[in-house]
Amino acid sequence: MTRSTFPSQPAEPEAEAGSAPRRGRPRDAGRDRALLDATLAVLAESGYGGLTTAAVAARAGVSTATLYRRWASKEELVIAAAALHGEGSYEQPDTGSLEGDLRVVLHDKAASMTGEGGRLIRALIGEAAHNSTLAGALVTAFLQPLYGRVAEVVRRAVERGEIPPLEDVDLLGEVVAGPVMTHFLLTPQLPEDVDETTARETADRLLPFALRAVGGRPA
Amino acid sequence: MTRSTFPSQPAEPEAEAGSAPRRGRPRDAGRDRALLDATLAVLAESGYGGLTTAAVAARAGVSTATLYRRWASKEELVIAAAALHGEGSYEQPDTGSLEGDLRVVLHDKAASMTGEGGRLIRALIGEAAHNSTLAGALVTAFLQPLYGRVAEVVRRAVERGEIPPLEDVDLLGEVVAGPVMTHFLLTPQLPEDVDETTARETADRLLPFALRAVGGRPA
Repeated sequence: MTRSTFPSQPAEPEAEAGSAPRRGRPRDAGRDRALLDATLAVLAESGYGGLTTAAVAARAGVSTATLYRRWASKEELVIAAAALHGEGSYEQPDTGSLEGDLRVVLHDKAASMTGEGGRLIRALIGEAAHNSTLAGALVTAFLQPLYGRVAEVVRRAVERGEIPPLEDVDLLGEVVAGPVMTHFLLTPQLPEDVDETTARETADRLLPFALRAVGGRPA
Repeated sequence: MTRSTFPSQPAEPEAEAGSAPRRGRPRDAGRDRALLDATLAVLAESGYGGLTTAAVAARAGVSTATLYRRWASKEELVIAAAALHGEGSYEQPDTGSLEGDLRVVLHDKAASMTGEGGRLIRALIGEAAHNSTLAGALVTAFLQPLYGRVAEVVRRAVERGEIPPLEDVDLLGEVVAGPVMTHFLLTPQLPEDVDETTARETADRLLPFALRAVGGRPA
């Protein structure tokens, strides 16, 4: 995906809610997206340690000066990629049963642990061991949206009388999604070598365990 | 821990089971250990991407030539550190109950996810996304010994008639240990900032969920 370095017209001027006003031209949202996609591609090849802003800029077909006008460091760039490709984009429907709701959570989580999202979360975990800023980004991008969904699913099941109220509700995210995440994190396969069908089947096989863990009964 | 570069006598000549015979002096096990400890220390500061064999050799007080006589690359060095600091060193006692046995598993796992072992597993996960050799080392060092313990604990509980036989026994490792691993992997805290008491308390709070997941009843 090569983009011209200086398009004569910005394609989609982006509102900059919550950030300080900038001088000069409005930001190009299409180019931002191309840079974040390029970030994932370079991460996939080289990992966080091997990623350079020069490689990302080259892959997106822009100058490093253009990249630096938007993100001041490779850390900021990776955090922005995490915000875009994290868990926040999933919707949690109300299927009417705990089993149905948990199935959606586990399918989404299995999908997000494979392919590019899977690579991103691995890269962040690797750096989070010695970088508090990236550790915080990992929590914001992947953990909080997921754990919020799980808490809501369990709250609905308790309200319906399907399960008794649970101790330690702050651990429900790990309890429900931890097994599927661990399954894909600790595997000899590279993220791109796990196909979507296998990922969904694994989620289905983990579903009865998740259901029992929170006090439900598998059908 | 500074060691002299060329001790006049090797301290503990090490048997080289399973590897090709080498010429020259027997290997110094104490120096090997110092190099693997230095590997963990450098990983903690710099991550896998920032780790160099020169930094590890300097930290251990040996020449890089000495390091390279033992491990040919930084990848081999990190894999050896994983073998030493992985899960293989834990013993699983028979406490006589599923709850007691699972408590031991979760306490050990919580301990191994914090401190130096926690940093190592994070570094390996980060690189396993794009390096099949490290992905394989992660499985050998951390996953197989742990999953073997869990399978044994559950097998004993089924034999005692404490729980019914389970579907999908190959997923029991993730089911039991996945929540505690995820809890420590996805956290804004650095591994060294989690104290041992908190780690054990978290394991205790996850125990009733693990017990229910495999069909047991919390006391």
